[in-house]
Amino acid sequence: MTPVPLSVLITGANRGIGLGLVKQWASLAGVKHIFACARKPDAAEELKDLSRNDARIHCVKLDVNSDKSILDAKKQAFLPLLKMASKECISDEWGVHRAAIINISSELGSIESNNTGSKLIRSIPYTLSKAALNQLTKTLSVDLAEDSILVVSVCPGWVRTDMGGPEASLTVEQSTKTQIQTALSLRKEHSGLLLSYDGTKLAY
Amino acid sequence: MTPVPLSVLITGANRGIGLGLVKQWASLAGVKHIFACARKPDAAEELKDLSRNDARIHCVKLDVNSDKSILDAKKQAFLPLLKMASKECISDEWGVHRAAIINISSELGSIESNNTGSKLIRSIPYTLSKAALNQLTKTLSVDLAEDSILVVSVCPGWVRTDMGGPEASLTVEQSTKTQIQTALSLRKEHSGLLLSYDGTKLAY
Repeated sequence: MTPVPLSVLITGANRGIGLGLVKQWASLAGVKHIFACARKPDAAEELKDLSRNDARIHCVKLDVNSDKSILDAKKQAFLPLLKMASKECISDEWGVHRAAIINISSELGSIESNNTGSKLIRSIPYTLSKAALNQLTKTLSVDLAEDSILVVSVCPGWVRTDMGGPEASLTVEQSTKTQIQTALSLRKEHSGLLLSYDGTKLAY
Repeated sequence: MTPVPLSVLITGANRGIGLGLVKQWASLAGVKHIFACARKPDAAEELKDLSRNDARIHCVKLDVNSDKSILDAKKQAFLPLLKMASKECISDEWGVHRAAIINISSELGSIESNNTGSKLIRSIPYTLSKAALNQLTKTLSVDLAEDSILVVSVCPGWVRTDMGGPEASLTVEQSTKTQIQTALSLRKEHSGLLLSYDGTKLAY
């Protein structure tokens, strides 16, 4: 059986892909804690309903636009927890059963694959921020290698969310279900890569 | 003879590599206008001296940290000028003699080549912003291709500036002189690439 992580932390868990990932991880019995982060967890009705019915789901207030909020969370809780989880792992295998950071990025952040300029996605800040995020993934993958913590960027595909719109090719369930399969299959050699939701390696 | 550009615009022209590039472009007789941009041109003493002695050097106030300042400059002056220059070019060749944007980036922005994490360059924002800049270069190279405007990212190398420090491997003159040779050799096939100061292609 594929080993699953004991604890999962998800940012932007109040809607769309984030909320879909909460549901998918919650469908795995081996997962004991799901930290579902949102800027305003009090306003996240569907997430609150989920957490009321599943004691493993903990709502956490986290504003990723606030450097202070992130730094506080990272220094005080997340990184020490990841290091502890990794250290306590019995096997030598890397993976989400040990300790992993999965950044939801996009193939649209790939510089190599950008053959449409700003025509396909008119938001230049979006594609630039995803390129920067991929560089952060690579940086962290090197920095955290000594702690056997796996770090990857994952492109969720084009998903029918508020952002993706109704014409998108994948439902939230299709994308997030496949993302979980990919997450469970991650090993040391994937650390630092940009992957599609189905695990295909993408160019930077 | 290599065709040279009639006009060159340089940002951050008050010191370091920017100031070095002003001097190098000014050494080419064919260059008729050098727009030397700085946040505070009044405080840029060496640049002011240069412009007093060379009527081709025009000091321009530009704050690249201000979206408004950039947008005003881009919409009102720079992009229309580049398009006009490109349209008026007689030959079919692309290059700086026609119209080109050269972004001073860094190999440290390369995600592919990042094998040191944050150990070599401890400033994560620096490497992330250069990855984002390389994505901008690629985006603009596609967007402006129909106007035959060439766009590249160039890594100046490790240069003895305030930022590079005294241990750096290149003087400002060595780096900027070679950058100009590379700039003059740029052709259509380079557009969208990340290049070293000596013209070597680097991975994204």
